[in-house]
Amino acid sequence: MEKGQLLYEGKAKRLYATDKQGILWVEYKDSATAFNGEKKEEITGKGILNNKITSLIFTKLQEAGIASHFVKQLSDHEQLVQSVSIIPLEVVVRNITAGSMAKRLGIEEGVAISRPVVEFYLKDDELGDPLITDDHVDMLKLATAEEVAELKQKAREINQVLIGFFKEIGVDLVDFKIEFGRDSNGQILLADEISPDTCRLWDMETKQKLDKDVFRRNLGNLTEAYELILTRLGGQHS
Amino acid sequence: MEKGQLLYEGKAKRLYATDKQGILWVEYKDSATAFNGEKKEEITGKGILNNKITSLIFTKLQEAGIASHFVKQLSDHEQLVQSVSIIPLEVVVRNITAGSMAKRLGIEEGVAISRPVVEFYLKDDELGDPLITDDHVDMLKLATAEEVAELKQKAREINQVLIGFFKEIGVDLVDFKIEFGRDSNGQILLADEISPDTCRLWDMETKQKLDKDVFRRNLGNLTEAYELILTRLGGQHS
Ligand SMILES: Nc1ncnc2c1ncn2[C@@H]1O[C@H](COP(=O)(O)OP(=O)(O)OP(=O)(O)O)[C@@H](O)[C@H]1O
Ligand SMILES: Nc1ncnc2c1ncn2[C@@H]1O[C@H](COP(=O)(O)OP(=O)(O)OP(=O)(O)O)[C@@H](O)[C@H]1O
Ligand SMILES: [Mg+2]
Ligand SMILES: [Mg+2]
Repeated sequence: MEKGQLLYEGKAKRLYATDKQGILWVEYKDSATAFNGEKKEEITGKGILNNKITSLIFTKLQEAGIASHFVKQLSDHEQLVQSVSIIPLEVVVRNITAGSMAKRLGIEEGVAISRPVVEFYLKDDELGDPLITDDHVDMLKLATAEEVAELKQKAREINQVLIGFFKEIGVDLVDFKIEFGRDSNGQILLADEISPDTCRLWDMETKQKLDKDVFRRNLGNLTEAYELILTRLGGQHS
Repeated sequence: MEKGQLLYEGKAKRLYATDKQGILWVEYKDSATAFNGEKKEEITGKGILNNKITSLIFTKLQEAGIASHFVKQLSDHEQLVQSVSIIPLEVVVRNITAGSMAKRLGIEEGVAISRPVVEFYLKDDELGDPLITDDHVDMLKLATAEEVAELKQKAREINQVLIGFFKEIGVDLVDFKIEFGRDSNGQILLADEISPDTCRLWDMETKQKLDKDVFRRNLGNLTEAYELILTRLGGQHS
């Protein structure tokens, strides 16, 4: 497999074409960004950690029957994925109140939610990724009603599987963000990444935050937290 | 019927008890407020206009089979309503893009929406009445899933009837906000008001705004606009 031209550079990853039709080469960067890019830092080793953690989680998800874009890990900071047409929605699942939802609704952080909440945010940095409803998705023709139902169903399934993975390693899955895309047959596939950058992960015992909130809220050493997640998941850090 | 003690003073209305169990006496005020109370003015005659317009519209809705809290108009600026326990949701229905939704989604104002959009905003001034989703309604236990379906269904029905009323008088119903409450039997009833304060109404020919945007955006004489709506609907202004 050969790496082709750079197709997209985002805040966390670079996407390259390959010589194989429909396959992308993803490079994880060391940048940490928060608050829609307002807070920004280079954190050496973060790209490697996220690539390893995402690769581990997508592999485990596939073993649990959750189809995704993930093909394989290539190197410390690179992986191959199936190219999809991303549905411009950040699909957020929440098991415990935290972050923007707690703020929006004026509720405490850290309260267990009996039926997990699934939210859609419009992927649009200029608009600040606003929360939207099913009717907005319909109006903007982002997805059909059937696809919306499928996205929610898949998000809930993935949540149940992830809760299990993290429970095994003594971590509460507070919330997470996923993205979906359509493959060349129009099938919906889980895409993008699942890492401490895109999840809230709290140690069950100590309640220590082991995710990007360490960076957002200046709570200490981010790579230490991410390394802890990687090694507990059974991965090796370099 | 005798007016009892003041139960609640809001930005637009005062609610009084009466000597009849379950019946409230509503007084419409002359205050105009916008942007969550940041912009504020006294506009002589506004209370009378809104009381008359709301009374007319709720009467027409009842004739069209839409049950509501409305009992009867008492005077120029007063009416009687059934007391209900308000569900703390502002239910917004949109036929044409405008206002906060257009801003949130970064879209133009004035574009027809093929399937009307129904939105829920949490009635909470301190939080700025945030947009919320069905999952938030469930999490906050504001209404059951069946009630949510009923609120949406009723909102869409009311929309269709109101579109018809306004079409007859050469006005496009762009969007509107309604509130619902539960009566003593737990039945859901349309409540609060429907007036140019709570609707966007555009003259079909001239596209002139005949609603609270005249005040919000300093577009001219508010009472003239409201009088036009009242008289076109067949009402008489004092
Ligand atoms: N399988 C895939 N096929 C095509 N695009 C993908 C795939 N998986 C993820 N993407 C997209 O690749 C980009 C990854 O880059 P990165 O995560 O750095 O973006 P970002 O800075 O978060 O910005 P944004 O997500 O807003 O574009 C995202 O736009 C993501 O939606
Ligand atoms: N039938 C009813 N029974 C009980 N309360 C009602 C009824 N109809 C309307 N209300 C409530 O009465 C109040 C009317 O006052 P007003 O419209 O001035 O309030 P407001 O300033 O808009 O503030 P808010 O709606 O946020 O309380 C509202 O709180 C409304 O929800
Ligand atoms: Mg991203
Ligand atoms: Mg009101």
